[in-house]
Amino acid sequence: MATGKINVSVENIFPLIKKFLYSDHEIFLRELVSNATDATLKLKHLASIGEAKVELGDPLIEIKIDKEAKTLHILDQGIGMTEEEVKKYINEVAFSGAEEFLDKYKDAGKDAGIIGHFGLGFYSSFMVADRVEILTKSYQDAPAVHWSCDGSPEFTLKKGKKKERGTEIILHIAEDSGEFLEEGRIRALLLKYNKFMPVPIKFGTRTETLPKPEGAGEDEPAPTREVDNIVNNPTPAWTKKPADLKDEDYNSFYRELYPMQFEEPLFHIHLNVDYPFNLTGILYFPKLNQDLALQKDRIQLYQNQVFITDNVEGIVPEFLTMLRGVIDSPDIPLNVSRSYLQADGAVKKISSYITRKVADKLNSLFREDRENFEKKWNDIKIVIEYGMLSEEKFFEKAEGFALYPTVDGAYYTLEELREKVSGQQTDKDGKLVLLYASDREAQHAYIRAARDKGYEVLLMDSPIVAHLMQKLETSKENLSFARVDADSLDKLIRKEDTQISKLSDEEQQTLKKQLEDVLGEKSPYTVQLEPADSEAAPFMITEPEFMRRMKEMQRTGGGMFGLGNMPELYNLVVNTNHPLVGEILATKTEKKRQRLINQCVDLARLSKGLLKGEELTTFIRRSYDLVK
Amino acid sequence: MATGKINVSVENIFPLIKKFLYSDHEIFLRELVSNATDATLKLKHLASIGEAKVELGDPLIEIKIDKEAKTLHILDQGIGMTEEEVKKYINEVAFSGAEEFLDKYKDAGKDAGIIGHFGLGFYSSFMVADRVEILTKSYQDAPAVHWSCDGSPEFTLKKGKKKERGTEIILHIAEDSGEFLEEGRIRALLLKYNKFMPVPIKFGTRTETLPKPEGAGEDEPAPTREVDNIVNNPTPAWTKKPADLKDEDYNSFYRELYPMQFEEPLFHIHLNVDYPFNLTGILYFPKLNQDLALQKDRIQLYQNQVFITDNVEGIVPEFLTMLRGVIDSPDIPLNVSRSYLQADGAVKKISSYITRKVADKLNSLFREDRENFEKKWNDIKIVIEYGMLSEEKFFEKAEGFALYPTVDGAYYTLEELREKVSGQQTDKDGKLVLLYASDREAQHAYIRAARDKGYEVLLMDSPIVAHLMQKLETSKENLSFARVDADSLDKLIRKEDTQISKLSDEEQQTLKKQLEDVLGEKSPYTVQLEPADSEAAPFMITEPEFMRRMKEMQRTGGGMFGLGNMPELYNLVVNTNHPLVGEILATKTEKKRQRLINQCVDLARLSKGLLKGEELTTFIRRSYDLVK
Repeated sequence: MATGKINVSVENIFPLIKKFLYSDHEIFLRELVSNATDATLKLKHLASIGEAKVELGDPLIEIKIDKEAKTLHILDQGIGMTEEEVKKYINEVAFSGAEEFLDKYKDAGKDAGIIGHFGLGFYSSFMVADRVEILTKSYQDAPAVHWSCDGSPEFTLKKGKKKERGTEIILHIAEDSGEFLEEGRIRALLLKYNKFMPVPIKFGTRTETLPKPEGAGEDEPAPTREVDNIVNNPTPAWTKKPADLKDEDYNSFYRELYPMQFEEPLFHIHLNVDYPFNLTGILYFPKLNQDLALQKDRIQLYQNQVFITDNVEGIVPEFLTMLRGVIDSPDIPLNVSRSYLQADGAVKKISSYITRKVADKLNSLFREDRENFEKKWNDIKIVIEYGMLSEEKFFEKAEGFALYPTVDGAYYTLEELREKVSGQQTDKDGKLVLLYASDREAQHAYIRAARDKGYEVLLMDSPIVAHLMQKLETSKENLSFARVDADSLDKLIRKEDTQISKLSDEEQQTLKKQLEDVLGEKSPYTVQLEPADSEAAPFMITEPEFMRRMKEMQRTGGGMFGLGNMPELYNLVVNTNHPLVGEILATKTEKKRQRLINQCVDLARLSKGLLKGEELTTFIRRSYDLVK
Repeated sequence: MATGKINVSVENIFPLIKKFLYSDHEIFLRELVSNATDATLKLKHLASIGEAKVELGDPLIEIKIDKEAKTLHILDQGIGMTEEEVKKYINEVAFSGAEEFLDKYKDAGKDAGIIGHFGLGFYSSFMVADRVEILTKSYQDAPAVHWSCDGSPEFTLKKGKKKERGTEIILHIAEDSGEFLEEGRIRALLLKYNKFMPVPIKFGTRTETLPKPEGAGEDEPAPTREVDNIVNNPTPAWTKKPADLKDEDYNSFYRELYPMQFEEPLFHIHLNVDYPFNLTGILYFPKLNQDLALQKDRIQLYQNQVFITDNVEGIVPEFLTMLRGVIDSPDIPLNVSRSYLQADGAVKKISSYITRKVADKLNSLFREDRENFEKKWNDIKIVIEYGMLSEEKFFEKAEGFALYPTVDGAYYTLEELREKVSGQQTDKDGKLVLLYASDREAQHAYIRAARDKGYEVLLMDSPIVAHLMQKLETSKENLSFARVDADSLDKLIRKEDTQISKLSDEEQQTLKKQLEDVLGEKSPYTVQLEPADSEAAPFMITEPEFMRRMKEMQRTGGGMFGLGNMPELYNLVVNTNHPLVGEILATKTEKKRQRLINQCVDLARLSKGLLKGEELTTFIRRSYDLVK
C-alpha cells in the first residue's frame, strides 16, 4: 500500500482559470479594481488601529490607457507588497491571502468585510493580457518589487524602482483583446462594475470652468483648469444612515441608478441588517407599466459596493423582483447555480427579511398617510396581490393594508368593507357577498343596477385577482365574491323576501316558450324568468361566476384543468315585471313579436359586450332604418 | 533577479473545485456517469480497431444505493485502469487524460468525440462524499487497483480484489448530502442528465410478467421474472439517420422529450452537420399558446448525449427559442457566460446554420404541400414574423413562404398578392395599397364595405404585425398597408375618378355646421363630408393609420417615443349621398335633428367599438324606448 499527495500541476491550472472561472473576460477589470480597493482599505484600516504609521492623504485608484504601448494600468496608493508578500500572495495561487488577513483582523468589526478575492482575481488578468507586470512598494520600509509573468507559470521577480507606496498593475493587452484599450469600453466597464466602489477611481482628467476674475471683460474667456475625472460615487446612498437621508436623496440616488428612467419612484425601503447576515440596500417601488415581464430584473446586487449582477432571482422573492434598487451583501454565495442559491440557508433568511421589511414599510405608509397610500394603490397592487398569493407570511401581514377599491373610488380594507356592507350584503344564509366588476366600462349597466339597489361594487381588475379571491374565500369564513354580471342581483344576494311577478304562471310558461322559439335550439342563452322592479332592465344576460372564474384562473396559470375549450354559457334573465315584457306577451302577430324579441335580445347582448361582427353590423343597419 | 514557477498548492485547489467549478452539487452524478460512459465507449472503440482483444458483450453501467453503508456505487464494464493510469489520471488533476487520448485517436473519426471531461469531473464527487473509493481493473492484463481518498490531498493506493474488467466508484455520502441516498432523487437525476446517454444504465430491477404457459388455469397467476431496469434510451432519435425515421418516430420521440405535452408537434427539422462544427438534433414547431413567454426555453442542449441545460439563449436565435427539441453539439463552450457565448465564432455559425435549416424546411414544406402549410400558418406565423423582423437573412428567405391571409381565408405570398390585387388596389400615384384588418369581428362593418367594393382585406392579427408592415413598406417600393378603418375607402385608395355629391356646396356647409354644433367643441371627431354610394353606410368613424400604427408599435417595443399619452383622434366620415343624411339636412325642428344626429353618431361609434360604459347604457335604454 502506498500513500501520496494528489499533484495539481501548474500547467493545468491556468487553462482552468481561463476557461472555467471567469468566462466573461471583461470582469478582469472589476477584479483588479477590487484588489486595488482592498489594498487601499487595508491600509486605512491598519492606520486607524495604529499598526501603520503613514500619511494616508486621500488615496485614489487610477486607471490609465497607453495606446502606443498597448498597456492598461491600474494604480493604487494602498498597502503595497514586500518581496515576501509577492511570493506569498501572487506566486501561490490560493485564497490564503485574504483568509489569513481576515483571521488576523476578524474582531476589528465591519471593516474586516473589505477583503475581496485577492489572489485568484488577479490571475483573471491573463484572460486579456499576454504579459502582466506588478510594480509595488509596501507601506512598510522595504524595497520596491517588480514582478512580471507572461501567463506561463514562469515569472521573474526583481527589485523595483517604484518610489511611492502602493501597487501598479500593467497589463500588456493581447492581440485579440484590443477592445480593452478603448477609452469608451473601459469607461463603460468602470461604470458597470465600479460605479459605487468605496475608493475614488480616477480615469483621465476633465476641464473645469472657473469663475471669471472680477472686472474681466465680456469677451474674455473664463479661466479653466484640468481636474481629476472621478468616475465613481464612493459613498452611495445605501451605505449611509437612513437618518442622514432625505426623500430627495433617495430620489436622486434612484436617478443615479437608472439614468434613463424619467418617472420618480413611488417610495423606498432602506434595508440594513447586521445579524445573522449582513445586508444593506435600498429598494424602490416603481410605477409599473403594462408589460410586467419587462420590469423584472432591475434590482442590482452588490458585494461590498462591487456590482455583481442584476439577476436577483432566488435572492429576492419572486413577487418583489418587480421592484428596483440595490442590495449589497457579502453573505450571498457567488458563482453558484440558482437552484443551489435557493437552498442556501443564509439566502433564505435574506429573502424572508426582505419580505418582512417590505411588508412593514407598506404597513407604516398605510398608517401614516392613508390618502397618499390610496393614491398609489393602483401602481403597487400587483406586487402586493402577487405577494399575498405566493408568500403566506406576506398574506397575513398584508391584511392590514391590502385595499379593495370600489367603482366609485373609495378604498376599504377587507375588515372595513365587512363592517360597511355586511348589513346590506349578507344573504339569508349569513354569507357576506362582495360584488365586484372587472371593467367599469364594459360592465356599466350591471354596476349601475347594483348601485341602484344600494350595493357596493368593488373594482377588481388586476390579472391575478381571480386567484386572490379564491384564496380569500377559502381562508375566510362566510365570504364570497360575485361579479355583478354573474346573475340577477336577487340571486347573487338572496334575501328572505322575494319579488312578486306581475305575470301568472301560465303567462310565464307562454312567454318562456315564445322566447325559446325565437332563440332557437342552439342558443347559448338559457331563459330565466324573474320578477324585478319594473324600472330595472327588461332583459339582461348573465354569466355564472364559477365557470368564468375558473377559466380566468386557468388563463393566468392554475385553476381547473381542461376548461379552456368549454363553451361559454349564459342566462337570459327576463324581468317579468317590465312593461316591455308584458308588451311582447301581448303581441299577437308572430312576425312582429319575433322582431321585438330579436331587438331586445340584441340590446341585452350589446350591454354585455356580446353583439359583434356581422350581427352587430346587421343590428346597426336595422337601427339606422328605425331612425328614419 | 530571480525566476520561478507559480506554485499551486493542492490544499487550495480542492476548495476551488468545490466552490466554483461545480456549484450545483447534483451534477456529480452526471460527471461520474459520463466517465463511466467514456470508459465503455473507449473500450468499444479500441476493440473495433483491434487494439483491445476482449469479449465485449453488452456492457452496462450500473448505479446502486447501499442505504446501510451510506454509499452510492457507479459501476462500468469499460476500459478500467492500471495502477499507472490511476496515478496518471486520478492523482494528477488535469485535463490531460482526455486530451492525450484525443490526440492519439483523433483520426479514428467521429467516435473520438466520446471523450468527456475525465479527470476533473471525477473530483466533483467530493462535493457530496466524505470519502471516495475507486475499484478498477484494466482490460489489459494488469492487477486490480484500489484507490481511496477522503478529500484531503492524501490518498491511499493498494492492490485491489476486483475480478471483472471495469471501474466501480464508491461514494461515502457525506452527512449533509443524504438526499443522494434516496432512490427517487437518484432516479430523477438519471432521467434529467442521462436519459439519452449512449450506454444502457441499470438502476435496480423491475418485475416483468411473462405469458402464461399453455393450459394454465384462469386463477393461476402469470409467471414473472426480475429484469434489469434500464433508465435511459441509448439511441435517441437525433442520433439516427433521417432516412431511418418515420413521422411516427419523430412524434414518439417528442413525447419522450415532453411527456406532459399532449399536443402533437406541427413538424420537425432534423439537424445534422459535421463541418465546420459538429451538431445534431431535432427541432419541433409546437402549437403555440397565447402566453408566448411560457413557451420559451424548451429546447434541450446536449453534448454527446449528456444533458447540459434547457437554456439555449445565445445558441439558438431568439426567434427560434419558441421551438422545442434537442440540440447536441460538442462544439458549444460550456460554463461560459451568455455574452461570451454570443461572441463565440463557432456559436455564431451554429446559430446561423440553425436559422438556415429552419428556413429551408419551411420552404420545402410550403413547396411540397401548400394546403397543409396554410393550415398550420396561424400556429407558426409568430415565429416566422418575428424571425423576419430580427434576422435579415431569414427575412430574405421567408419571402418565398411567408403568407398573408385574407379575412375570407385565402392565403397569398406577397408576390401573389401583388399580382392578384394590383389592378384594383393601385392608387393614382402607382402605389399598391394593401388593406388589412386586425380583428375580423371588431372591424366587421369596415371589412364588409371594402369587400363590397371588390377589395381584398388581409387579416393581420399577430402582436408584432405593425413592425412587420413597417419593415415591408421600407424595404419594398410602392407598397403601403392601411387598416380598413383608417379612412374612407375612396381616400385609402385614391383613384382618378371621384364620386359626385348629391348635396350642393352650400348644403354641405350647412350640414357640417349642424353636425359640429351637436358634437360640441370638445368632440374628438373631425367631421369629414364625402360623397359615396347611397347604399354605403351613412356615418362612419375612421382612425388615421400613421398615428395608430406608431402607438401599436410603441406598445410592442419600438416605434416613436412618447406617443403613449397622445389623445386618440378620429374622423366622422359622413356619406353625403345617403338618404338619411339628406333627411337630417331637411329636418327643420332643431330638437328632432339633434336626436337624429345623436342616434346616428352613436351607431357609428358602436360600429367602431367606441360606445361604452354609461354612454352605451344610455343608448340601450333609449333604444328599448324606441322598440316600444
